[in-house]
Amino acid sequence: MADGVSAGGSTGPEGSHGSRGSARSAGAGLVPPPSDIQALWAARGVAVIGVSDRAGSLGQLPVRFLERYGYRGPVSIIHPSGGQVMGRPSHRSLAVAPWPIDLVVVLVGSDRVEAVIDDCIAEGIGTAIICSSGFAETGDAGAALQERLVAKARAGGVRLLGPNCIGTVGVAAGQVTSFSPLFSGERTELVPGPIGFVSQSGALGYGAVSLAFERGLGLGWVVNTGNEADISAVEVMAAMADEPGCRGILAYAESLGDIAGLRAVVDRGVPVALLKAGRSDAGARAAASHTGALAAGDRVVDAALRQIGVVRVDDVDELLDVGDVMTCPPLAGGRIAIVTTSGGSGILAADAVERHGLTLAALAAETTVALDEIVPAFGSTANPVDVTASVMSNGALFDRTLDAIADDPGVDGIVACFCVLTGKDVDDVVNSLSRVAERSGKPVVVARTGADHLAPAANSQMRAAGIPCYQTPARAVRALAALHSFSREHASSRSEAPVPVEGAVSDGRERMSHQTPPHGASEQDVKDLLAAAGIPVPTGRFVDRADDAAQAVEECGGAAVFKAVVPGLVHKSDAGGVVVGVTPDRAAAAYEQVAGLGGRVWAEELVGGGVEALVGCAPSPLGPVLTVGVGGVLTEVFNDVALRLLPVTAADVEQMVDETRLSTLLAGVRGAAPADRAALVETVCRLAGIVGSWPSGFELDLNPVTVLPQGHGVRVLDAAYIAPTSDALERTGAHADPEHPA
Amino acid sequence: MADGVSAGGSTGPEGSHGSRGSARSAGAGLVPPPSDIQALWAARGVAVIGVSDRAGSLGQLPVRFLERYGYRGPVSIIHPSGGQVMGRPSHRSLAVAPWPIDLVVVLVGSDRVEAVIDDCIAEGIGTAIICSSGFAETGDAGAALQERLVAKARAGGVRLLGPNCIGTVGVAAGQVTSFSPLFSGERTELVPGPIGFVSQSGALGYGAVSLAFERGLGLGWVVNTGNEADISAVEVMAAMADEPGCRGILAYAESLGDIAGLRAVVDRGVPVALLKAGRSDAGARAAASHTGALAAGDRVVDAALRQIGVVRVDDVDELLDVGDVMTCPPLAGGRIAIVTTSGGSGILAADAVERHGLTLAALAAETTVALDEIVPAFGSTANPVDVTASVMSNGALFDRTLDAIADDPGVDGIVACFCVLTGKDVDDVVNSLSRVAERSGKPVVVARTGADHLAPAANSQMRAAGIPCYQTPARAVRALAALHSFSREHASSRSEAPVPVEGAVSDGRERMSHQTPPHGASEQDVKDLLAAAGIPVPTGRFVDRADDAAQAVEECGGAAVFKAVVPGLVHKSDAGGVVVGVTPDRAAAAYEQVAGLGGRVWAEELVGGGVEALVGCAPSPLGPVLTVGVGGVLTEVFNDVALRLLPVTAADVEQMVDETRLSTLLAGVRGAAPADRAALVETVCRLAGIVGSWPSGFELDLNPVTVLPQGHGVRVLDAAYIAPTSDALERTGAHADPEHPA
Repeated sequence: MADGVSAGGSTGPEGSHGSRGSARSAGAGLVPPPSDIQALWAARGVAVIGVSDRAGSLGQLPVRFLERYGYRGPVSIIHPSGGQVMGRPSHRSLAVAPWPIDLVVVLVGSDRVEAVIDDCIAEGIGTAIICSSGFAETGDAGAALQERLVAKARAGGVRLLGPNCIGTVGVAAGQVTSFSPLFSGERTELVPGPIGFVSQSGALGYGAVSLAFERGLGLGWVVNTGNEADISAVEVMAAMADEPGCRGILAYAESLGDIAGLRAVVDRGVPVALLKAGRSDAGARAAASHTGALAAGDRVVDAALRQIGVVRVDDVDELLDVGDVMTCPPLAGGRIAIVTTSGGSGILAADAVERHGLTLAALAAETTVALDEIVPAFGSTANPVDVTASVMSNGALFDRTLDAIADDPGVDGIVACFCVLTGKDVDDVVNSLSRVAERSGKPVVVARTGADHLAPAANSQMRAAGIPCYQTPARAVRALAALHSFSREHASSRSEAPVPVEGAVSDGRERMSHQTPPHGASEQDVKDLLAAAGIPVPTGRFVDRADDAAQAVEECGGAAVFKAVVPGLVHKSDAGGVVVGVTPDRAAAAYEQVAGLGGRVWAEELVGGGVEALVGCAPSPLGPVLTVGVGGVLTEVFNDVALRLLPVTAADVEQMVDETRLSTLLAGVRGAAPADRAALVETVCRLAGIVGSWPSGFELDLNPVTVLPQGHGVRVLDAAYIAPTSDALERTGAHADPEHPA
Repeated sequence: MADGVSAGGSTGPEGSHGSRGSARSAGAGLVPPPSDIQALWAARGVAVIGVSDRAGSLGQLPVRFLERYGYRGPVSIIHPSGGQVMGRPSHRSLAVAPWPIDLVVVLVGSDRVEAVIDDCIAEGIGTAIICSSGFAETGDAGAALQERLVAKARAGGVRLLGPNCIGTVGVAAGQVTSFSPLFSGERTELVPGPIGFVSQSGALGYGAVSLAFERGLGLGWVVNTGNEADISAVEVMAAMADEPGCRGILAYAESLGDIAGLRAVVDRGVPVALLKAGRSDAGARAAASHTGALAAGDRVVDAALRQIGVVRVDDVDELLDVGDVMTCPPLAGGRIAIVTTSGGSGILAADAVERHGLTLAALAAETTVALDEIVPAFGSTANPVDVTASVMSNGALFDRTLDAIADDPGVDGIVACFCVLTGKDVDDVVNSLSRVAERSGKPVVVARTGADHLAPAANSQMRAAGIPCYQTPARAVRALAALHSFSREHASSRSEAPVPVEGAVSDGRERMSHQTPPHGASEQDVKDLLAAAGIPVPTGRFVDRADDAAQAVEECGGAAVFKAVVPGLVHKSDAGGVVVGVTPDRAAAAYEQVAGLGGRVWAEELVGGGVEALVGCAPSPLGPVLTVGVGGVLTEVFNDVALRLLPVTAADVEQMVDETRLSTLLAGVRGAAPADRAALVETVCRLAGIVGSWPSGFELDLNPVTVLPQGHGVRVLDAAYIAPTSDALERTGAHADPEHPA
């Protein structure tokens, strides 16, 4: 440590009078030190390492950008010469730099990064952005280098962003600790705002940031996480969510591991929208080769994100569209009123309302009466309300129209649609809309389907009034649907307890319910375990002699199923190892057939007449996934299953049933009696509780679980268990689809 | 007729020396007369009626616009005073206007329109744009007025556009015969191009046109059809398709009736993209109240458009995105190569490739070898090809990369993805891409995910080079998918003959196959008719006495199904009117049960063990719809059916089977033998041929049609026929879903 060594002038215009010390030890300063993550956007002082006078030196860029965008803290250029660099004084090392440094931006060759980290450790500097590439993204050697780097940094208490990243921006402070060419743009300006932006991709991330600024969507904190050797996107999101004034977070991710961490961000009440790439098999392969991260089966990702309340989007413009709506008041219900000057826009908006699971508000009789007095005959007073040009040309009439609609208690949110809106109309429209938005407290969004140049200030005027403006009705409604998701997430009780690990029955068998099936567990082993936990299975026993077979059938109630129990035989039916409907007279013959496969013979009661469900559990990179859906032979045909990460609540399980056609089947088709849905839900919850305590990596398929008529419960007719293997965690969620029907 | 009456100066700077006469009689002129529809964009002379000096007179607008945008033909202002209007000379009537008039733009009150049409008839003017509102869109009185207007115009040989429309634009000629406020915009400029634009909505249509011009998408012909009392959108599209140089048509429609007309447009080889609003129930209701047109069930619309090769889009920006790709060379196959400077963009593009049914090209070994020499280790030579910044900074390397990819015979089209593209990069990129596009003849599109201001000329430079540029990878790929649809449509033989109306068997029963089922036809009536046409049904006969029942079962092969034949009883099973598996010993009892319902008893052979399909036909506003899908009890649960308008080809039917899970069921599930798919397809074709000759409006459900193991054919086990009712044509396509399982 070399405090207070004088080292010439400062590139930072202010704050340069503080005595040099590590950021962490500079506690006597006026500004409290940022956390290690906060330093990425709120460092009190920055050092840049890897700056030279060579043309094209990327290290010059952050130095220039910090000046250009008005960063007020000191910027130390570290250069071995200690002489002038970029016409500015440099310092030979971090140790001799005279100003506080919370953050180091590293742009040296990959082989020189370790030494920089040593210096950071020595100086007690908490955070480094490693822009350098040449690490895990290039192969095994790079990965080893990256591992050493992280181990060193962790041991020394330095947090690393990257490597292989483009850096960060603290927008309010003008802290552009990034070398993105975006900030070289002649007309680039930072647009401050309450939204955080995190991207695993640098180029795409800053491209999206440029589009956000271009549309006037203000951002507060921008981070590109690169290889995520240490600091992850989710950790960054959590820190952004802790910033006072943060109203939402937009993220681009290619890999997604820490779902619990993401849930914690949402649980802080900050809405999160995520563009998760790698949705397709093709995309997932590309993702894997790009970041070295495992791509989770996309259905699992979808289910998990829905479960924790993150809105998933499919494209960059949709991500930014959602960002625009994050600052709106909550959309408590999904009942949308559409006000339009064009019938066509109204219909497109109505289409989108249905597509996105919102509902077209049914206007109250009083509302319609009020509108009848305003809207001419060639308009429409039903929703979508077509106000016509004549209402639009009279500001007072338009105000009354909006008031009538906003005051309707059956309306939760409003979409106002315009087409060719010219300059002179805009003031009136903005005034009317902002007045009604403020007065009603309901979210109001605008679709303006016309060229910008017709009213160049319209979008910024609306934005200033808190009214997001989209180019088409469909996009406006899609954003409202996201707002509805966020609002529901807020409103719903996040405290509903997940299903506990159950002792199930209280006859002293609790211990068994926690028991994990042995490796190679047979159907009967699994069923015993389930039965011990209070999950109903058919009664049955082993038959070991042909002349005992008829007796066994009688014990089963006069009709039985004979099943082969052969270690390693998974597809019993295909091998002729299952005989259904065995009567006492045919019992011996059935025994001989099944026993002929070389194992033992299991006889169990024949349970008929129910609806066949599938209940399963499989590993995924995000954790064990519960699967509920249509069972039996239809499983393979329709692949109609719902997924959830464990743990789940009973409400989750109800929702899973509703998401699939299983709900239709259970309700009774073609006059069939309704099945015992409640018993199925209870069984699934019970199962979820049990398997939650099993070591991860196993697969379990209960298929079919027969759901009998109401009041008669369920029976697990077949069960297959596959023990964890060493590569179980590498399996994708595709395995949640049952591939092992017994 | 008052030829040659002198009437003062002209508002049209040229062509004013021609002697006045009706356009049609002015055959001696140098320019050949346009057709009545062509006059909407290529009139040799225009008259405007409804112009006054009153502030806000809409009639002033077309006069101003025609001047402002450089229309070179004469413009006659018709005003009863015959004096100066807008500081220009007017003429008291069409009869005294001295110049040729191909088109009259009418902006008078609805009560005065008929008189104008009288004048048009008298003057032999072929076409009038009725901008006036107050017709069918306002209620019954307006509808009656509109009917009278059309009757008069038809009788007199005048074609009407509108009423209640905003007019038309012939872009090349500067013929802005419209009063849209778009054309008042200070910075509005017409952008000529080879694409036609037709909209049933005025405001939304011209809003979309403004967005097209803003992005530089050139249009040739713009028409808003309004109420479509006479000229329909489809008729306009046909005329646009006939224009030399037309490369594609974009349309917005709320109602769609003339599907055959639309097919004829596509068959001319002109690609058509359609934004069909009213997709949702909510939207469809809004559409009906907006235009008075019937909304067809959306699944029918979807199926019909796919069938005829029209690309359906969901939003305005998607419509324009597709417009941008219409001028690309055809995308013969669907194998896409992605070249990217950002891994993230590459993954998003790959996701979109899969989402839109294209395939990620598998690059040839030689291509990969070539790329290995160019792309550094931290890039990727697999598709998506991540060229990295180092390749991009070297124009020659980027050229070689593109050449290697474009020369790969396994690549049909290329998406190039960029993010923050700054001004200096653009020239190189455009040169490289346009060179490879021209050389290879393969379509190349660009995704540029960065703010415009970073390289303001980029989009127009790319456009000039014939390379469409989109804001995101997903949008670029979506446009390529549309191009692929158009290209396939072109390539596929449009001449495959539909299934003819079949005489079926040649044993003298042809006559029967054309017979329509009688009103109230029973299951047995329909089956007789099908059997006569060669469609297999179970053997069976009526049983009229209990003591004949066992004999009937024996004749059926020892096991039978007994069915009640009671006029009006549709849901036989629910009423206990079907007994399955009747053996001789139980025959009498079964007879009594079924006969107890009050009708006759039908005994037929028990056919078991097949896959249950549904085959049906139902009316829709677009014509009779054939339905094929999963049958039996699963029909209601999974609603998994494919639809096609009749007539169909055998290839269509094969495709229908493939679109549903019926294909999986037919292939054999869990070791079941494959079913006789060929027999099913043949039966469906045969049925399609028969019902094609039935009077429209009926519903027919064959469900289940049991498909037996290969070589054993099919049997129609149940059939329900509902005769046409007077309101059959008002039914939506939703009725194509079977609601009447017997």
